[in-house]
Amino acid sequence: MKSEADPRRTLALGPGAEFDRIRGIIQVLGPNATGLGDDCALFPSGDTFFALSTDVSVEGIHFRLDWISLEEVGWRAAAALSDLAAEGANPLGLLAAVTMPDSAAPADLLQMMNGVGTAGASVGATVAGGDLSSGSAWSIAVTVIGETSQPVTRAGARPGDARWVTGMLGGSRAGLEAWRRGAEPTPEARRRYAHPEPRVAAGQWLARHGARAMLALSDGLGGDAAHLAAASAVAVEIDLALLPVALEVKQEADRLGQSSERFAAEAGEDFELLAALPPEFAGATEFARACGIPLTRIGTIKSGKGVRFMLAGRALELRGFNHFG
Amino acid sequence: MKSEADPRRTLALGPGAEFDRIRGIIQVLGPNATGLGDDCALFPSGDTFFALSTDVSVEGIHFRLDWISLEEVGWRAAAALSDLAAEGANPLGLLAAVTMPDSAAPADLLQMMNGVGTAGASVGATVAGGDLSSGSAWSIAVTVIGETSQPVTRAGARPGDARWVTGMLGGSRAGLEAWRRGAEPTPEARRRYAHPEPRVAAGQWLARHGARAMLALSDGLGGDAAHLAAASAVAVEIDLALLPVALEVKQEADRLGQSSERFAAEAGEDFELLAALPPEFAGATEFARACGIPLTRIGTIKSGKGVRFMLAGRALELRGFNHFG
Repeated sequence: MKSEADPRRTLALGPGAEFDRIRGIIQVLGPNATGLGDDCALFPSGDTFFALSTDVSVEGIHFRLDWISLEEVGWRAAAALSDLAAEGANPLGLLAAVTMPDSAAPADLLQMMNGVGTAGASVGATVAGGDLSSGSAWSIAVTVIGETSQPVTRAGARPGDARWVTGMLGGSRAGLEAWRRGAEPTPEARRRYAHPEPRVAAGQWLARHGARAMLALSDGLGGDAAHLAAASAVAVEIDLALLPVALEVKQEADRLGQSSERFAAEAGEDFELLAALPPEFAGATEFARACGIPLTRIGTIKSGKGVRFMLAGRALELRGFNHFG
Repeated sequence: MKSEADPRRTLALGPGAEFDRIRGIIQVLGPNATGLGDDCALFPSGDTFFALSTDVSVEGIHFRLDWISLEEVGWRAAAALSDLAAEGANPLGLLAAVTMPDSAAPADLLQMMNGVGTAGASVGATVAGGDLSSGSAWSIAVTVIGETSQPVTRAGARPGDARWVTGMLGGSRAGLEAWRRGAEPTPEARRRYAHPEPRVAAGQWLARHGARAMLALSDGLGGDAAHLAAASAVAVEIDLALLPVALEVKQEADRLGQSSERFAAEAGEDFELLAALPPEFAGATEFARACGIPLTRIGTIKSGKGVRFMLAGRALELRGFNHFG
C-alpha cells in the first residue's frame, strides 16, 4: 500500500553517530537535498517511480581479502539491491565505481566485476555503467536502479500495525565473528556474509500484500528498527524472543556470552526486510510458500516514538551495528 | 537527432590501458552487462529515458587537499553531471558514496557535501541519497540521474559530419601543472580545475540543434576523440590549429616545451562537450549567444576508423590523459 505522503520528502532517522552525520548533511544542504532518509531515492516518471540507492564497500572496513574472494566482494558490494527490495522495486541496472590498488592484477578486477554482475543477474539487473580509479586499497561503490509503481517507503507504518521480518537473522555476523577470532565460519554463516541474497521477490510480495512501510536491515535491528519508527512517527515494541535466529548463531553468541536473541538483534548486514503490515495480515504461510523463506511477526507498532526491545518481560538496550569506525 | 540504433547497446571504445580494462569487464560480464561504453547508462520509461553516470574521485589520484578545499573536492566530484550534459539530458539528482579518514572532522564532511550540493543545484539537481564509510583517505563516488526524451549517444556520427567542441580547452590541466611545479595557478586555471561547469545547457542546445553524437571530455581530446570514432564506427580528422585553447594554457605549455595546441589536446578534465553535427550546421554564433561559451569546429568525420590529429600539415601522435596510475 502506497504511503499517502509525498514519497520524495526527507524522512527522519533514528539515533546514532552515523545518522547524526546524515542529519548534519541534510541540514547543511537545505533545499539542495530532497528525499534523504529512505532506503532509495525516488524519481517519478509517468505512472511509475525509478528508485536509486548507492552503497560503498571499503577493504579493511567492510571486507578483508584474507576472508573472502574478490568475486564475493563484488557480490556483497551490490547490497544496495536490498534497498530496491525494501522499496518493493524491480531491479534494472547497476553502476560500479571501483578503486583498485596498483598491485592488483587485471584478473582481480574481472573477478570482482563478475561478482557484481552475478549478484545483479540473480535479480534481473545488468551492469550498465561504472568508473575506474587506482588507490591505496580496494573500494567499490555500487549504485542500483529499479522501478516500482507503488514505492513502499519507511514512512507508512501506523499504530496497530504489526512488525514483521523476512528470513533468519544473525548469520552474516556469525561469519564475521568467526573470522575475527581466527576461525573459519560454518558454510552457512560464510554464505550469509559473502553471498547475501537481495530479498527482491519478498519485497514485491509484501508490497502487493499491503506492506505499509519497509526497510532493508543493514545496520542491525538495534539501529534500523529506530529508523522505521522515526520515519513513520510511531513507536515500536519488539519481542526479541520472537526473533527468527539463524541456527549458526548460537555458537558465536555463546562465545561472546550473549543470548542468541541479542546477538542476532545487534547483528548487521543480514539484508533481510523489516516490514510494517496491517493488523489483519495473516499471510505468513503463503509468503513462505511463495518466497521460500519465513516471515516472522516480531512486534507491534504503537503511538509515540522510539523502539522498545523486550526479552523475557524485561526491556533491553541494544546497540546498532556500526561499520563506521 | 536521436541515433537510430538501440541506445542501450554496448558501444566500442578507443585504445588505451584503462579502456582495455573496460573491454575485459564487458567480455567477462557477457549478458550480465548492457549499454556500457557511452557517457551514460540509459533506462527507458514511456516516452523518455533516464540517464545515469557514476564517477569516483580519490584523494591523491584525482585531487590533493593542499591544492583545493573539501568544498571544491565535492563540486568537482560531481563531474558525472557532464556526462548527463553529453547525453542532452536534464539533471534531476545526485547520490554520493563518501569514504572519509578517521582523522576528518564532522565539518569536513559537511563542506564536501556542500560542494556536491552546490554543483548539483547549479544545474537543477538535488542530492537524493548516499552512503558513508570510514577509510584511509577521502574518496567520493557520485552517481547522477537525469532525463531526456532523445538521448544523444556517442554512436551517431556519420561521414561528412563536422566535429565541434564547446568552450576552451586546457585550463584545468594548466592549474594542475602549476600545482605540480609548486606554484599557485592563475585564478582562471584554478577555477577550471576546481569548479568545472557541467555544460548542461550547451548539451541540450546541441541535442535540439541536430547533434548526432556527443561525449564529455574527461580524458582529453587525445583519448576521447577515439571513443567517439570507435562508437560511431567512423574516422575523425582533427586540425589542432583550430582548437580553442584557453588563455591560461600558454605559460604552462611553454614550461613543458610543448605547443599550446598539444598541451590542450592532451589535457584532461576540461568537461567540455565534443559533438558531431551535420555538415549544414551553421549555428555557432547562435550557440555562443544562447550558452555564453564558444562552439568551435575542429575537424571532420570521414569513412574508416581511428583519429588523425594534424598540426601545420603534419600528423601528430597524442597521448590521452590518464588518471589511472
